[in-house]
Amino acid sequence: MEDTPRARVATQMRTEIAQQPEALRRTLDALLPRVEEITSAADGARQVLFIARGTSDNAAVYGSYLIQVHAGRLATLASPSVATVYRARVDLSGVIAVGLSQSGRTEEIVSTLVWARDCGARTVAVTNGHDSALAEVADVALITEAGAERAVPATKTFTTQLAALAVLGIGLGAEVDVGQLRGAPDEIERLLSVPMDLDPVVAELAPVAGVVVSGRGFAYSAALELALKLKEACYLHAMGLSYADLLHGPIAVVDSATPAIIVAADSGPTLAPSIALARRVTGAGARAYGIGGGAPLGHACSRALPGPHLPEWLAPIGLIVPGQLLAEALARRLGIDPDSPRGLSKVTQTV
Amino acid sequence: MEDTPRARVATQMRTEIAQQPEALRRTLDALLPRVEEITSAADGARQVLFIARGTSDNAAVYGSYLIQVHAGRLATLASPSVATVYRARVDLSGVIAVGLSQSGRTEEIVSTLVWARDCGARTVAVTNGHDSALAEVADVALITEAGAERAVPATKTFTTQLAALAVLGIGLGAEVDVGQLRGAPDEIERLLSVPMDLDPVVAELAPVAGVVVSGRGFAYSAALELALKLKEACYLHAMGLSYADLLHGPIAVVDSATPAIIVAADSGPTLAPSIALARRVTGAGARAYGIGGGAPLGHACSRALPGPHLPEWLAPIGLIVPGQLLAEALARRLGIDPDSPRGLSKVTQTV
Repeated sequence: MEDTPRARVATQMRTEIAQQPEALRRTLDALLPRVEEITSAADGARQVLFIARGTSDNAAVYGSYLIQVHAGRLATLASPSVATVYRARVDLSGVIAVGLSQSGRTEEIVSTLVWARDCGARTVAVTNGHDSALAEVADVALITEAGAERAVPATKTFTTQLAALAVLGIGLGAEVDVGQLRGAPDEIERLLSVPMDLDPVVAELAPVAGVVVSGRGFAYSAALELALKLKEACYLHAMGLSYADLLHGPIAVVDSATPAIIVAADSGPTLAPSIALARRVTGAGARAYGIGGGAPLGHACSRALPGPHLPEWLAPIGLIVPGQLLAEALARRLGIDPDSPRGLSKVTQTV
Repeated sequence: MEDTPRARVATQMRTEIAQQPEALRRTLDALLPRVEEITSAADGARQVLFIARGTSDNAAVYGSYLIQVHAGRLATLASPSVATVYRARVDLSGVIAVGLSQSGRTEEIVSTLVWARDCGARTVAVTNGHDSALAEVADVALITEAGAERAVPATKTFTTQLAALAVLGIGLGAEVDVGQLRGAPDEIERLLSVPMDLDPVVAELAPVAGVVVSGRGFAYSAALELALKLKEACYLHAMGLSYADLLHGPIAVVDSATPAIIVAADSGPTLAPSIALARRVTGAGARAYGIGGGAPLGHACSRALPGPHLPEWLAPIGLIVPGQLLAEALARRLGIDPDSPRGLSKVTQTV
């Protein structure tokens, strides 16, 4: 497969993965000066409600941890069908509703943000769509500067959404080091510059029907996003589960034919349980692949891909990168064009 | 396989599935008289935050739709690790925190409910564990009367949790017909009394590695719970996804080897999109199995199992029943003892 012309010409997805450091720099340059504006708009607001689907929903999971853990405000995910299907009226006074959509044109997300506004919420949009409907209806529009994304599997629009949510969190009072955020694009660039030996992992995953992808806390967003990439680009039965949910039943599916991919930051309180999970998986006779988690996680796994050297609160921006590279390489190995998976288009309409 | 002794002796799981009408009657008899107490305890509270894992989390999804659509209050799901791993302090004044655990002894859920109380929330427990730690720490303990559940896959503790959440919703002001709730156990009994031809579906699912299980709105909770049953009792790669999330990427995994199970009430605004999804799946050359949705969904699917005749707001209590029967029968067909799947125990500790 490596010798086919398709494998030698870089895919659009691979090109867009490589564009992430620049996309992140542009996004931070555009959004960090707007922290005070966010703080003013959020004055007196109690909590955050994220409105998103797909990749954007996985970004929202990151935002919910950041805002709860570091900004002390409740932050949870909305069910858009409450608005669009049931047309319920819910009291959202004191709520900041944050709609995320890379295109800004997913009708369901636009409608739900309008609904939230009509229910009394203040509204924020996080989108890569300049002049999109989502940006227009929001009180505050945080535009990511990912540039045009043509591959169907979102990559740079995801990591720039994470960066925008980091800025949002800072605007909401998160007690974090802004300098660490400014340095994140350099670290992603370094991670991308180090040759990553994907071949053994790709070779072992190619014949597999399903995998469990697990992470906890901040890393959970990267685990969910990798599971989505593996489903949409590789048609793999990829089950994204938090460490805790995995142990409530789904751990039964892990066996010699169903490996686990375990995603963890290389510091923080979720590292030790991630290592314990890797040991439990390999102890049950299944393979465990680590992404991130430093040497301790790598040693507990059958194979490991290196993650970023970033503090836990920023780690998901880098933890998804080896996953993106893996999904792209595995798709090609399986004879799938990762830029155009079957059944999908770039703007998803789900009203 | 049907001729082995194991197949002829009823499993504990099958026995407990059959106990659901009585368990539901006992639970409603115990909890419906407490509606006013719930209303008083919730006076002035703005919103609900559910704290749960696994099957209980799937019940919480039902509660979140019921309370938002019919009681006009925001209702979302908590991330327990914000409390137990990160020990964050979040302002939860005006919030009713509802902890769900069938045993009432899952330490993570007990700790998170205590955390919510310390953050200013009022607390409710929904548990089958009389005198459990969860019941003891809550302001209001709603005890389900499922009786002892011995099979590892939860069945009657799930449907009685749904009944308890229906009572909670009524206490929070849901504009629904209590008589319909009182009648639900009889309808579950009728559904269980009608012979259900599971064999063709079991035969077709037996060689399959993975399935997508999808539902929208109220039915989403039953879809998630069926996906969990198929993972834990049948080791199937079962991906539970809402209709809308499915279209944001994972639809790519549906193919001739990966069928979809589509769960829908037989009325309400989610029926038409569920039928459209079934047509899309079969149009793509994959098999679609319907659960519920009446004749219109059945006709759009390759095969269908009958659902309950219940209004949409109560349908999940009955929609999970054919799924429970299917998971139990498929497990036996695969040579798995559904009462004791590998790697699982009845009380899950995930701190």
